[in-house]
Amino acid sequence: MNFQHGNIVALTGGVGGAKLVLGLSQILKATQLTAIVNTGDDFTHLGLPISPDLDTLMYTLAGLVNPDTGWGCNDETWSFMQALEQLDAETWFRIGDRDLATHVIRAQLLAEPATLTQVTQALCQRLSIHTRILPMSDTPVRTQVVTDCGRLDFQHYFVRDRAEPVVKQLEYAGVDNAAPSPAALTALQDPDLAGIVIAPSNPYLSIDPILAVPGMRAALQAATAPIVAVSPIVGGAALKGPAAKIMRELGIEPSAAAVSRHYGDLLDGFIADEHDRDMVSTPDQLNLPVQICDTIMHTLDDKIRLARAILDFIQSIDVNRTE
Amino acid sequence: MNFQHGNIVALTGGVGGAKLVLGLSQILKATQLTAIVNTGDDFTHLGLPISPDLDTLMYTLAGLVNPDTGWGCNDETWSFMQALEQLDAETWFRIGDRDLATHVIRAQLLAEPATLTQVTQALCQRLSIHTRILPMSDTPVRTQVVTDCGRLDFQHYFVRDRAEPVVKQLEYAGVDNAAPSPAALTALQDPDLAGIVIAPSNPYLSIDPILAVPGMRAALQAATAPIVAVSPIVGGAALKGPAAKIMRELGIEPSAAAVSRHYGDLLDGFIADEHDRDMVSTPDQLNLPVQICDTIMHTLDDKIRLARAILDFIQSIDVNRTE
Repeated sequence: MNFQHGNIVALTGGVGGAKLVLGLSQILKATQLTAIVNTGDDFTHLGLPISPDLDTLMYTLAGLVNPDTGWGCNDETWSFMQALEQLDAETWFRIGDRDLATHVIRAQLLAEPATLTQVTQALCQRLSIHTRILPMSDTPVRTQVVTDCGRLDFQHYFVRDRAEPVVKQLEYAGVDNAAPSPAALTALQDPDLAGIVIAPSNPYLSIDPILAVPGMRAALQAATAPIVAVSPIVGGAALKGPAAKIMRELGIEPSAAAVSRHYGDLLDGFIADEHDRDMVSTPDQLNLPVQICDTIMHTLDDKIRLARAILDFIQSIDVNRTE
Repeated sequence: MNFQHGNIVALTGGVGGAKLVLGLSQILKATQLTAIVNTGDDFTHLGLPISPDLDTLMYTLAGLVNPDTGWGCNDETWSFMQALEQLDAETWFRIGDRDLATHVIRAQLLAEPATLTQVTQALCQRLSIHTRILPMSDTPVRTQVVTDCGRLDFQHYFVRDRAEPVVKQLEYAGVDNAAPSPAALTALQDPDLAGIVIAPSNPYLSIDPILAVPGMRAALQAATAPIVAVSPIVGGAALKGPAAKIMRELGIEPSAAAVSRHYGDLLDGFIADEHDRDMVSTPDQLNLPVQICDTIMHTLDDKIRLARAILDFIQSIDVNRTE
């Protein structure tokens, strides 16, 4: 089955979102699919520009990703890190030898100069990735986590401190001066746009930075296609990462319903896992079409199945956003 | 035996010179030995600052060098290069995964900013190298090889084109604006200086760039210690690299004697290999003390033996350079 009715944009973070985009890429033609990717996790480390979520998307779509972790490269080696250790350099952020090539080439291309959108396009071309992968913005936006241990740069919070500090607030430094990647706006303004999928990524760490880019939310609301989100919370827990922990720390009981409320009136539909079937019947449901399906993606077939369920759901939603 | 009579400065390029400096470091106390290293081979590659001769010195003295090649790291892996290939990047200059850590840290330290002398000192400290390793200059000097294939950057000539083009002339771009590393001048002005050794490195590619730095030759001539050179030409051939080939291309019959004539009145003594014993008796000899010894360095013992012979020779030379 092909999806014949227009183009799809996915808003996504790293691992979980990348799996869904891979599933979508197996059903859609390359020209039909655009991923707008969180760059709030980006940082400069050892002088190299690291874009973890863009890299995870690229490695996943190129078939290079480490299947055990969902990020980083398969068949990776770690000699560079060993040598860094020998040189008493910072080693809390682990960069594999293969992965390093991406950062070195990115640094070189950015210095030409080129925008992050152009650099990502060039890297995708070299990896024969046909899906359009776009950073949310060409301007650096840096997620800052205000915690009980003070304000932390995202990777310090997430990797160095293993997401252990208690989150009080999230801020996206630089976002006020950022604009959406022009290519992202073009994708959202596409008259053939059939749907926008918010991937089952962390709402606070991966999706909110995208939505915080000035002009992005307006572009989403102006889009003529339905916007559906896939819950990253299944049965009250996050499948991966600290989403549920962060929700609790922010005073929100983690649930699929709480995720749908978080996105609020941006959504035209919501997809929850079978574990959260009660979402369609409980009184706190939003006035929103909800699709229940198996959202857990272990195998490629799982990813394709979920992608297909999302596309079917999108086609079923009757939107008249100009109402 | 320790050498008790003052300090030694070595002028050196990469592999062969590094072997001699390692030999000297086994006899001298750390505070007695300074290496002033060619940086004409340096270049920026993939956005990273590469200093091949400094690296070879560091890796050799830290015991990390690849014993098969004399440069690069032992137990090296090549995943970064494989990933670069996959990304359609330039791969003619091979950077190993361990080696890469040095270049990444150097880039980071230079950007702080710091001088190449300071960065090299920091790297040496991290590698527990006590011998003072100094770049000839903190200003970039780039050896250019004028060949029958046109003007080539050094690494293009040497690595990419395997030193095959016919050399017509050598130029050291940027040298007019360069000054010796201040620490190199300090070492040459040391009142306890006992000798200056020109290592058996390529005279044209490794030593001449050092001598071409404005102020370096004057500082050498002003030094109160004897200057001795070790011939890199043994029996009319270079032990390694294109020295003999280049001499022929420049119209000079390659021989130890030709090397001593090349350095001319800079020298107070010359060390030739046993294969060139005729140097002490032939009519074209310079009016210069010549020491014959086994200059071939395979084992650590070879290196120490040559170092000791050089130090003995230096002690035997009666110099009154103010005459």
